[in-house]
Amino acid sequence: MDPSILSPKSIAIVGTSQDPDKIGSVILRNLIDGGYNGKIYPINPKYEELQGRRVYPDIIQIPESIDMVCIAIPHQFIEDIIDQCVTKKVKSVVIISAGFKEVGEQGRELEERITNKLRSEKIRLLGPNCLGFINNKAKINLSFARENPGDGKIAFISQSGAFCTAILDMASEKKLGFSHVVSIGNKADIQENELMELFVSDNNISAIALYLEEFSDGKEFVTLSQKAKKPILIIAPGSSEKAKEAISSHTGSLASSFDTTIAAIKKGNMIFTENSEELFKLMQLININIIPKGKKVGIVSNAGGPGIIAVDRIEKEKLELSEIGEKTKQKLLSFLPPESSISNPVDILGDAKSDRYELAIQALLDEISVDSILVLLTPQLITEIEGTAQIIANLSKKASKPIISCFLGGKYIKSGIRILEENNCAWFNDIQEALHLISKLAEFNEGKELTKIVDCGEYLVKTKHKKEVEEYVYKDRIEILRDNLTIQILKEFKIDMPEQMVVSNLEQGIDFASTIFPVAIKATAQDLAHKTDFKGIFLDIRTITEFEEKYNELKENITKTTGNVAPLILIQQMIEGNLEFFIGANREGGSDIYEKNGLGFGHLLAIGQGGIYTEIFKDIRHILVPECREKIESILSRTKVSMILDGYRGKPKLAKEKLVDLIMNIQKLLVSYPEIISMDINPVMITEDRAVVVDTKLYVKS
Amino acid sequence: MDPSILSPKSIAIVGTSQDPDKIGSVILRNLIDGGYNGKIYPINPKYEELQGRRVYPDIIQIPESIDMVCIAIPHQFIEDIIDQCVTKKVKSVVIISAGFKEVGEQGRELEERITNKLRSEKIRLLGPNCLGFINNKAKINLSFARENPGDGKIAFISQSGAFCTAILDMASEKKLGFSHVVSIGNKADIQENELMELFVSDNNISAIALYLEEFSDGKEFVTLSQKAKKPILIIAPGSSEKAKEAISSHTGSLASSFDTTIAAIKKGNMIFTENSEELFKLMQLININIIPKGKKVGIVSNAGGPGIIAVDRIEKEKLELSEIGEKTKQKLLSFLPPESSISNPVDILGDAKSDRYELAIQALLDEISVDSILVLLTPQLITEIEGTAQIIANLSKKASKPIISCFLGGKYIKSGIRILEENNCAWFNDIQEALHLISKLAEFNEGKELTKIVDCGEYLVKTKHKKEVEEYVYKDRIEILRDNLTIQILKEFKIDMPEQMVVSNLEQGIDFASTIFPVAIKATAQDLAHKTDFKGIFLDIRTITEFEEKYNELKENITKTTGNVAPLILIQQMIEGNLEFFIGANREGGSDIYEKNGLGFGHLLAIGQGGIYTEIFKDIRHILVPECREKIESILSRTKVSMILDGYRGKPKLAKEKLVDLIMNIQKLLVSYPEIISMDINPVMITEDRAVVVDTKLYVKS
Repeated sequence: MDPSILSPKSIAIVGTSQDPDKIGSVILRNLIDGGYNGKIYPINPKYEELQGRRVYPDIIQIPESIDMVCIAIPHQFIEDIIDQCVTKKVKSVVIISAGFKEVGEQGRELEERITNKLRSEKIRLLGPNCLGFINNKAKINLSFARENPGDGKIAFISQSGAFCTAILDMASEKKLGFSHVVSIGNKADIQENELMELFVSDNNISAIALYLEEFSDGKEFVTLSQKAKKPILIIAPGSSEKAKEAISSHTGSLASSFDTTIAAIKKGNMIFTENSEELFKLMQLININIIPKGKKVGIVSNAGGPGIIAVDRIEKEKLELSEIGEKTKQKLLSFLPPESSISNPVDILGDAKSDRYELAIQALLDEISVDSILVLLTPQLITEIEGTAQIIANLSKKASKPIISCFLGGKYIKSGIRILEENNCAWFNDIQEALHLISKLAEFNEGKELTKIVDCGEYLVKTKHKKEVEEYVYKDRIEILRDNLTIQILKEFKIDMPEQMVVSNLEQGIDFASTIFPVAIKATAQDLAHKTDFKGIFLDIRTITEFEEKYNELKENITKTTGNVAPLILIQQMIEGNLEFFIGANREGGSDIYEKNGLGFGHLLAIGQGGIYTEIFKDIRHILVPECREKIESILSRTKVSMILDGYRGKPKLAKEKLVDLIMNIQKLLVSYPEIISMDINPVMITEDRAVVVDTKLYVKS
Repeated sequence: MDPSILSPKSIAIVGTSQDPDKIGSVILRNLIDGGYNGKIYPINPKYEELQGRRVYPDIIQIPESIDMVCIAIPHQFIEDIIDQCVTKKVKSVVIISAGFKEVGEQGRELEERITNKLRSEKIRLLGPNCLGFINNKAKINLSFARENPGDGKIAFISQSGAFCTAILDMASEKKLGFSHVVSIGNKADIQENELMELFVSDNNISAIALYLEEFSDGKEFVTLSQKAKKPILIIAPGSSEKAKEAISSHTGSLASSFDTTIAAIKKGNMIFTENSEELFKLMQLININIIPKGKKVGIVSNAGGPGIIAVDRIEKEKLELSEIGEKTKQKLLSFLPPESSISNPVDILGDAKSDRYELAIQALLDEISVDSILVLLTPQLITEIEGTAQIIANLSKKASKPIISCFLGGKYIKSGIRILEENNCAWFNDIQEALHLISKLAEFNEGKELTKIVDCGEYLVKTKHKKEVEEYVYKDRIEILRDNLTIQILKEFKIDMPEQMVVSNLEQGIDFASTIFPVAIKATAQDLAHKTDFKGIFLDIRTITEFEEKYNELKENITKTTGNVAPLILIQQMIEGNLEFFIGANREGGSDIYEKNGLGFGHLLAIGQGGIYTEIFKDIRHILVPECREKIESILSRTKVSMILDGYRGKPKLAKEKLVDLIMNIQKLLVSYPEIISMDINPVMITEDRAVVVDTKLYVKS
């Protein structure tokens, strides 16, 4: 996006009037009061002057050229104004008004007409149904926000206007400024990715916060976040929504749209937040540079109880309790009373005055094993609340590590909190909240180094069965591939499978089976797809007699269930695995997802324990395709079954490397056959030297 | 405990002086300022008068009899004063001073001497190492708290003085009163259970809050909580392993295991809280009677985004989104604009003024499917913040359901918050926090009906093998029972086991095995106990030849590992289970735990998935013995494997009732053989009609 779109040199406002409470009037006032130094053109045929400015009857009659038109009139009158904008060749339009796709079909059509008209003239559109935007770098407040909290180094993008007003109100109280606040509303044209791109590359912006109910293009969003190397804070509500399309019964429940969002947030090293308070507090911490290098926390406390609570919490938040070194312990010993605790948490006792806090905090600042310091204070009889706050303020100014204060109390601690706040120190009332946020920031900082952009191109392979697959692809229907084609595709990616053959009659079956006993016989995926509650599989068949009997029984079962009188039957050599593994995938987006203009997140892999209990234990982790080998190894290591791969309780080690190879190859398969909308591999039999794919279903859709 | 202990008619204070900052002086001042109407005797040989009161040189020389003596002088001078107390035959002593068991061995000895002396004279002791106590019902503030927030209906018991000061400071700010605040310190004599008993039976007290680092007698504590039928709020820090270390360096005592604590809290229908802020906010809610009948929440919002966040959170907090009935929907339709959402969350749109809030909240108050109402407000341009707050205040006064407000913002919402606060309404800045606390209170209320006190006596059985077991019991050593005894004990409780026999030679083995092939042969528990990393088990032996071979191999393995040249061998018929289950138990407390004076929680059962992967998947739930059958069924249903018991994906249903019988019988076994300190049953093989205990280890200790 051309950055000048957010810095127009002239702005016309449609919808101002003499009523000062009208949204258009508020916007005009905000723009003037904000000190905008471009030209302002209020538009209204009824007035000559408004708020001391000359008013124009319409856009056409403005003598100069216009960069931006802001529209805040009822939606039914907007198309006329849009036509004027086109005639006048303005550069951009901001539509504040509601009444578009958010209210139903008619609104959606209106929105589409307007958007198409503007797009064909290359006029950019912000909104509709938004609060406007604030660009404090250019002194533009083109919004109807109650108050602009002023300039700052965080950019904020919000899909919800109401959420914007809440955050701006918090920011006004706490004097937290923003470089930009952009309310994108229905995002008919300008969406989050273009703004992200702008803000990621802007060195004056140190963090980006977003409220998003849906992603315009998830894949690009993740890539932008990976590039950012600055904190991206995101609220993405709607997680409890049931998966949009429960495609296959397995993967449908194991790789939902929420799982995709979370995997994307992790992949992009973003900071996931769950509500407005949390988002705001994270912004405050980032604003005062409270971003710990790592997860090791040192604690100073004038009371044992809160220290214990903090230690509990450190473990739960996946932080680490610093191991205080011998040198620092000696230093602490030199000034603390003998009853103190000089290991972490450092308990400086209930009679500690501010000097003891100062020395203890200083000692932890000098201690290499400490990444951040949590200072706990309870207001005991001789506690110097203000003095200690002042000490913390002084130390924070020079410190290279974050100092976070938790003053526990209400009335008496207030004066201390005021000092901390005036000195831009990080303070909390609540140990749990403090550590929760510190953990998120430390994880971001550690993740920065590990984030690596993987290009889909690396995984793209020239495919042999494209044509055959395409025969199955429909726009509005999901189809399952026939077993023979599935097997051929897996072979293309060197995926290890049992000896197997699809046969059409008993004789063929006996010929094949008798060379490889014991075998399993199964209905094909296509027959199974119709109904799953019939016996469609027989295992461990060891003789020709048994084979004949089971073959006929299976054939009968299939015919009875599907009506297919000559079903195909899959014969597989039995594989005994030490572990049954599961690999599933769902695609979010269309089959053009890996092309330049494809929209969506792509394929989400679900990996973990396989077998019939996959859904009971849900020992599943997610991978947003494509990921590099190291990331896959690290994600795999977080499944519980990975302990079994590593050899559990004297059992042998299993072919973990082969499993990682398999997952890598499946990534290639999905990128190369993006028509696959869903995949179920269950089980993969893991032995000591193989990872054998026993059962695969591939579903396709455009 | 005699309730008069907390209402002494006369109090002597040792440790007052002319220095107004001395702890004793603060206590004297607090007592006088608090309006105590009993007699006060400051003690100090150096002064005649302090704070306008006549001073006595020592306790003996006070002419009248004395109810209570409060001591706040350095610990080394205390024994003299205690002697005076004994001579004077006072009723109780409060020791504020520190320097006892929390500082090491010498302090522990001093504490024991003093405690024993007082106990033998039947003089009660509060402390040492405490803040004192406040009894607002009797106008007694015998503490060195900075401020007493005044009378109220919640009693607060704290093991940490510092935690007390933090809570009192919060309460002073928010004007939340307490009936009693008791700082129990090292609880050398008076502990939480006696106070609980007092407060549970006091109808003026509507809730009890506790900060406890260790339980004086867990079993009794749970029973008291079960009887209470009023909210018991508890912070019990020390849940993580590291926190345990901090506790033992802090108070010199060990923490009970976290699982036991959590199981006890659930069994007692207590409300578990994790930090001071949460505890305090729950107190505030209880204080204004915000206790929803059930978990169904109705939402009114002037913005979509926060509504979605609330819906997400309701699912995560295990609350339920109310299904709004047709009649209420019609009512909502009658006054809301057509773009509103009349299903839950009710979106009354961004231009909602207070009248729309009023009608919508009233409609939800009348709706039967709503247990509590969450009102969300974002400060949009025409939002009537104060007006809406006033509406909520008015409705709350008459409402029979809790109304909880979340005003999202900072500067502009302040005036609204002030109105809510002045009118004792429940308000939050944070949706997540609001729903988290509402969930805890709703769960408490639902749990009240379900809580049932089970008497251990019901489970006590006259045992046949007491003598034999007692031979294994030592005070300082854990011993494992021999297999034959274990089998006999299990048989006593009609526990289903495979056909089995302990044999001492091959011939005996062949005689037994050949009648029941296939069999498993195992080293005995006693041989296995020494070392686990040798092959001590062979499964699925089907012939005499195979038996001979494996028997000899096993015998050799045992001899090589243990040195035992004539080991006993256990032979068991093979049982094929459809599910492997696990039942374990640990005892917290001594072997007298189920007797009247036994201290501790008793046995904690762990039940869940068995087999070799028990520790990998940790699909385990806990039962604090004894529980009734319904509770066991309900806890069992929360394990993941219970889905398998119920027949998963077309598999047959398993013998769930037999498993519940087994757990009930194991409860009897543990109550009847309390010498068992630890038990491992893994696996229990669950078939369609049996729950067969295959492998059991019983450990005993006094």
